[in-house]
Amino acid sequence: MLQMGGNIIKKNQASFRVFAYNQQAVSLVVKNEDKTEVFPLEQEEEHIYSTILNGIGPGSLYKFRLDKGDFPDPYSYFQPEGVHGFSQVIDHSAYQWHDENWKGIDQEKLITMEIHTGTFSEAGNLRGILEKLDYLQQLGITAIELMPIAQATGRWNWGYDGVNLFSVNHNYGTPDDLKRLVDTCHQRGIAVLLDVVYNHFGPEGNYLSFFGPYLTKKHETPWGEAVNFDDAYSYYIRKYVLDNVCCWLDLYHIDGLRLDAVHAIKDNSPLHIIQEISLIANNLSRKHQVSKLIIAESDENNTRLIEPLDQGGYGADAQWMDDFHHIIHTSLTDENKGYYMDYGELKGLEKAYTNYLYTGQYSHFWEKKRGTDASARPGKQFVVALQNHDQVGNRAQGDRLSTLVDFPLLKASAGLVLFSAYMPLIFMGEEYGEQNPFLFFTDHQDPELKKAVSRGRKKEFKQFGWGEVPDPQDPETFYRSKLTPQKNWKEKNQQLFNFYRDMIKLRLSHPVLKRLDKDRLKAKVNSQNRVVQVHRWENGISLTALFNLGETSFPIENQGKQIFNSEWEIYGGKETGLSRFLSKGQMVILESQSTP
Amino acid sequence: MLQMGGNIIKKNQASFRVFAYNQQAVSLVVKNEDKTEVFPLEQEEEHIYSTILNGIGPGSLYKFRLDKGDFPDPYSYFQPEGVHGFSQVIDHSAYQWHDENWKGIDQEKLITMEIHTGTFSEAGNLRGILEKLDYLQQLGITAIELMPIAQATGRWNWGYDGVNLFSVNHNYGTPDDLKRLVDTCHQRGIAVLLDVVYNHFGPEGNYLSFFGPYLTKKHETPWGEAVNFDDAYSYYIRKYVLDNVCCWLDLYHIDGLRLDAVHAIKDNSPLHIIQEISLIANNLSRKHQVSKLIIAESDENNTRLIEPLDQGGYGADAQWMDDFHHIIHTSLTDENKGYYMDYGELKGLEKAYTNYLYTGQYSHFWEKKRGTDASARPGKQFVVALQNHDQVGNRAQGDRLSTLVDFPLLKASAGLVLFSAYMPLIFMGEEYGEQNPFLFFTDHQDPELKKAVSRGRKKEFKQFGWGEVPDPQDPETFYRSKLTPQKNWKEKNQQLFNFYRDMIKLRLSHPVLKRLDKDRLKAKVNSQNRVVQVHRWENGISLTALFNLGETSFPIENQGKQIFNSEWEIYGGKETGLSRFLSKGQMVILESQSTP
Repeated sequence: MLQMGGNIIKKNQASFRVFAYNQQAVSLVVKNEDKTEVFPLEQEEEHIYSTILNGIGPGSLYKFRLDKGDFPDPYSYFQPEGVHGFSQVIDHSAYQWHDENWKGIDQEKLITMEIHTGTFSEAGNLRGILEKLDYLQQLGITAIELMPIAQATGRWNWGYDGVNLFSVNHNYGTPDDLKRLVDTCHQRGIAVLLDVVYNHFGPEGNYLSFFGPYLTKKHETPWGEAVNFDDAYSYYIRKYVLDNVCCWLDLYHIDGLRLDAVHAIKDNSPLHIIQEISLIANNLSRKHQVSKLIIAESDENNTRLIEPLDQGGYGADAQWMDDFHHIIHTSLTDENKGYYMDYGELKGLEKAYTNYLYTGQYSHFWEKKRGTDASARPGKQFVVALQNHDQVGNRAQGDRLSTLVDFPLLKASAGLVLFSAYMPLIFMGEEYGEQNPFLFFTDHQDPELKKAVSRGRKKEFKQFGWGEVPDPQDPETFYRSKLTPQKNWKEKNQQLFNFYRDMIKLRLSHPVLKRLDKDRLKAKVNSQNRVVQVHRWENGISLTALFNLGETSFPIENQGKQIFNSEWEIYGGKETGLSRFLSKGQMVILESQSTP
Repeated sequence: MLQMGGNIIKKNQASFRVFAYNQQAVSLVVKNEDKTEVFPLEQEEEHIYSTILNGIGPGSLYKFRLDKGDFPDPYSYFQPEGVHGFSQVIDHSAYQWHDENWKGIDQEKLITMEIHTGTFSEAGNLRGILEKLDYLQQLGITAIELMPIAQATGRWNWGYDGVNLFSVNHNYGTPDDLKRLVDTCHQRGIAVLLDVVYNHFGPEGNYLSFFGPYLTKKHETPWGEAVNFDDAYSYYIRKYVLDNVCCWLDLYHIDGLRLDAVHAIKDNSPLHIIQEISLIANNLSRKHQVSKLIIAESDENNTRLIEPLDQGGYGADAQWMDDFHHIIHTSLTDENKGYYMDYGELKGLEKAYTNYLYTGQYSHFWEKKRGTDASARPGKQFVVALQNHDQVGNRAQGDRLSTLVDFPLLKASAGLVLFSAYMPLIFMGEEYGEQNPFLFFTDHQDPELKKAVSRGRKKEFKQFGWGEVPDPQDPETFYRSKLTPQKNWKEKNQQLFNFYRDMIKLRLSHPVLKRLDKDRLKAKVNSQNRVVQVHRWENGISLTALFNLGETSFPIENQGKQIFNSEWEIYGGKETGLSRFLSKGQMVILESQSTP
């Protein structure tokens, strides 16, 4: 059976196959310089059209001609002219891989940096990441997680407006550029994770609905109609998504997918699409002999997502745990709008170090009971972050935590994350206290949509009284969000970097920290003084981390060798050795032989 | 969305939905006494037709009218008039279940009897099994496994000619009879497994091909074209099979499915259909809070089948292990035709007690290397048998082992199975040495097919020189295969029953035997004397079973308390206490405190 999309079969021969629903006829339009040639497709079965053509090689440009016009291939691997343009035939057998020694990374060893390709480097593309791998390795990063790279409209986009789910965004480079990045990462011992969006499609350049019922009115999502996983013809859309999973994990050697907002993936089928995604990933792990991870973003606090398939779970390897972030963030900033209303108590950390905070209690924001008990799930199944693209970028001013709290506290709060028995995720720039915002930016071309997005953003934030909101469509909004080049760093940037680097190193090497064993972790919060104490232990060695998030200094009564201190000079403090008091915002780690 | 088939929605309202491929029109024909009424179905999407009708209640008879005629519903839950007749609407909500306390049985505790419903009891139906549950419990059976009960042609059939995969065979009773059997078994602590056939359909009454491409020429099987799991339109056939799995495990509370000959299930999809079947079973286990088992018959000796889904395995809970049977059978009978050519050495048991015999070596029968290493898979994942419907019934004369070897040897060979760390399966009648054959019988109605089957069977066996073969179509062939009523048992029948009963009891209660731990099992074979010695141990207690399959008696040198002896009077022997010699065909179990 032919594969979907345009594929090279052999030299100068390509196959084309497309799902096109309810058409009188479907043909292939091939563009050759200024001329176009049209080839009729044969109907293989209802809604499936295909052909095999000679004389078509890699690089050929094509569209499918449907009853209502010519449209890019839903399976297009590349859109050199963007979402509205022609699709390009890619020969996936051409790239010569050199990552045969790559065996993957133990999930417990993942230190992930979330990267938006367009703003991460000056070049703003995949090569720009490649050039910063030395930097990432100096920091101790073991995995990069790319925000979605599927083709979206315009010159820049966060990635969640993708419409060509198989296309490497041409702003970022070519399919080969992505392969080269993954290949090089693997040779350096870095895993590559990719953010993929299966809960909605972008609003512009989305021609999918000409091809078939990719959306269904049966369910609602924040983006309108849901992706059709269980309504009529859903088979084709399920296949589209499962093929997309294969595309990244198999063709591009990607090590894992971060599934965006799976709570908005509505599926009442007997087999949930996430179960099938997990199965595919497991099959590909077996094929490549490298663990392919499925990491889900979900706000539902439901362990079914990360329970094994053989227990009727959805089989995801891990999920994002927002509770942990929200407790820290609201404690530091006193913010209490929107879903932050359910947080605010530092005390919540006592629970959140080993479980969701919401494990079935009533939530005021959700106006219902929320969550299941996650105490039995291992720490490695939870991704925690002090900052991420959403928590920063969905603020009106896109302001990073480094501009909201003072320097000592910034270190201590990063310490709270890095001392946890969860998988830490660092949002690019966080590690040196980037002061530039990460704003919501778009580059829609459609005049109506441009206005709607600009207006919508203003309206959305007006209610919070957050003042003037940068226009997402203003190019400046994008440029302002770019990371500061390292050569322009100030002293504090390097000091914070040192802090992150050394905490990561400690985390990956210390016998107490390197296993993500939350059964051997106990957190205590002194609410009055706002002092957090976290114990972790293993084989007779015990570590106690103390964090002073309060306003006054606090005596250190604990015994033990101080092996880490956020106020050492290298981190911008004044301590040279032992601290007897935790100053405001200070963090200290003590090591002892006793275990609780 | 409506369910497939005919289903009661509420009182006096039913829905009908069918996959019918390439039809001009599809309608529903409802039979009411001698009149029929026709209702057009609406096309929901291509090939899917449905309607909701008032005034149609449980018991209504219907067919679907396609372009080429009126045919029973592929999803029919009941065919009161057989494969050619009308389908009947069943209200699955009507039966009142009383098995809410049923929590399932630990896989390690399964002692399964394989039952052919038509020949197991005098009544030859599901009620007949119900009446023999006392008997089965006296024996110690904890699970019954029904040979396929899907509707097949004629008055009797092994079950592998099923064509209405959702229908309880009307020869055996009604859907409620099956529910009552399962319900009662559960209340008595017995699990119910069901043999299902997803690798081919029966040759008569198979109207599926009028509905769609249920078969594909893409693959070959011993029964001709393969069931279409990966060719055009396979989505509908996959759904048909997955819905069937749900039907038995969910609607009928069946505890597990034995998948017939999965090596003939050809599927090159990214997700193998068996993976999806396992997933469905896991989802239903979660729903019912009862472990739903998938047990596969396969001749491939491939552990992928029973490896977990999260390792890219197919996720079956267990599989049949034929190697174990073949070694014992060929050692006892010296048979060496067909696939038996690869066996014959008693020595093979040393390996086969903890692994396949063929783990990658060259097989003369298969003319290729065969098998993978199964040493890491736990014992509970393998079903072993001394006899089963195939090994008995596929012999020309259907002769049971009880007619091939003498009485002491019969006990010892049963002991080899029951002392193993695998899941034992007992073929009905085996436990008391039934002398009646279990023959291959059919009751095809089609004149051409009748002749073909009769001729085919004769031809098939002529080459082996096994003499006159009973005609499968002769009713006598069926009647001769019925079990002897217990009231007609002879002394030896009761003695063998006692042996099975006591070995089962020992197996389920003895600390060394009750866990299926093949890592604490070691078998040694003295080939010259044909004496097998099997050690099993646990927590400082050790059991040694000695089996003399040779012609001469053999001294018992092992120390230990003789806790079981196949020659005790209760089992028809003459030993009253300790044996110093193992007589021909004798089996003794010794218990000691030492562990190897």
